[in-house]
Amino acid sequence: MILSIVGDSKSGKTTIVTKLVPVLKSKGLKVAVVKHTHGFEIDKEGKDSWKIYHSGADVVLSSKDKLALIKRQSYEDFNEIYNRYLKEYDIIITEGFNDAGKDRIVVLNSKNNLGRYQKGKIIAIVSDFPIDGYTYFKKSELDELIKFILDYLNVG
Amino acid sequence: MILSIVGDSKSGKTTIVTKLVPVLKSKGLKVAVVKHTHGFEIDKEGKDSWKIYHSGADVVLSSKDKLALIKRQSYEDFNEIYNRYLKEYDIIITEGFNDAGKDRIVVLNSKNNLGRYQKGKIIAIVSDFPIDGYTYFKKSELDELIKFILDYLNVG
Repeated sequence: MILSIVGDSKSGKTTIVTKLVPVLKSKGLKVAVVKHTHGFEIDKEGKDSWKIYHSGADVVLSSKDKLALIKRQSYEDFNEIYNRYLKEYDIIITEGFNDAGKDRIVVLNSKNNLGRYQKGKIIAIVSDFPIDGYTYFKKSELDELIKFILDYLNVG
Repeated sequence: MILSIVGDSKSGKTTIVTKLVPVLKSKGLKVAVVKHTHGFEIDKEGKDSWKIYHSGADVVLSSKDKLALIKRQSYEDFNEIYNRYLKEYDIIITEGFNDAGKDRIVVLNSKNNLGRYQKGKIIAIVSDFPIDGYTYFKKSELDELIKFILDYLNVG
């Protein structure tokens, strides 16, 4: 099951995600979040793993309870990421990945931006102004939104 | 092709790895380094990706040119890591992963520790004291070591 949280920058997407994940986990579900970013530096400069990545190698860090893979890629494709890394999960939440076309919650700071997010089925909109024709939650109605999502995912 | 760099803590394993990788890359090879650690925090506390991981989800970060996967695992198994994430690489260097039993360079701070690293074929030892019966490089002889490794990997 894949659900996208898409919408405007700094509209509160991560707040929704971090509120939703523990609830899904409490249902016994294995959850992954895939976040699209415009460039990122995950590691700390000067650490061994940082030095190794910057020497030119892709890097896997592994300990008894955690694994990290940091690698170069030449393009972004949600379906490829899904096929390679995400098949083992019960629920996958994408934060961003608008173009992947998955069913989505759209989080808006401005009404005018709605058109950007119509590349997949909109199941609800989160914003501080109502938009006709859509299920709609205010940003302060996170508990209600979470309940709606659980119902949608059929894991309530 | 898999080569392990194993040995004592703070013996210079990462220095060897970060010197070796650019040379392998210059030969047109696709290189991954797998580093065993005793627990790590790859992300920066407070960042969105950190918050998402700590909310309970495994995390993929993706941008146009880079991907990071950070996930929980319940045990460490080199062969599983290899099969899941590393099949696309020409050369895989492990830093640590002594128990995986791969051919190895052993880097020593103390002669007495050699016995710990004999779970795979030792192709050379790096230390500041000679050890009978093994190909041997001083820590200052990195260029010679790199050349030896390239010959061993048959990519010289």
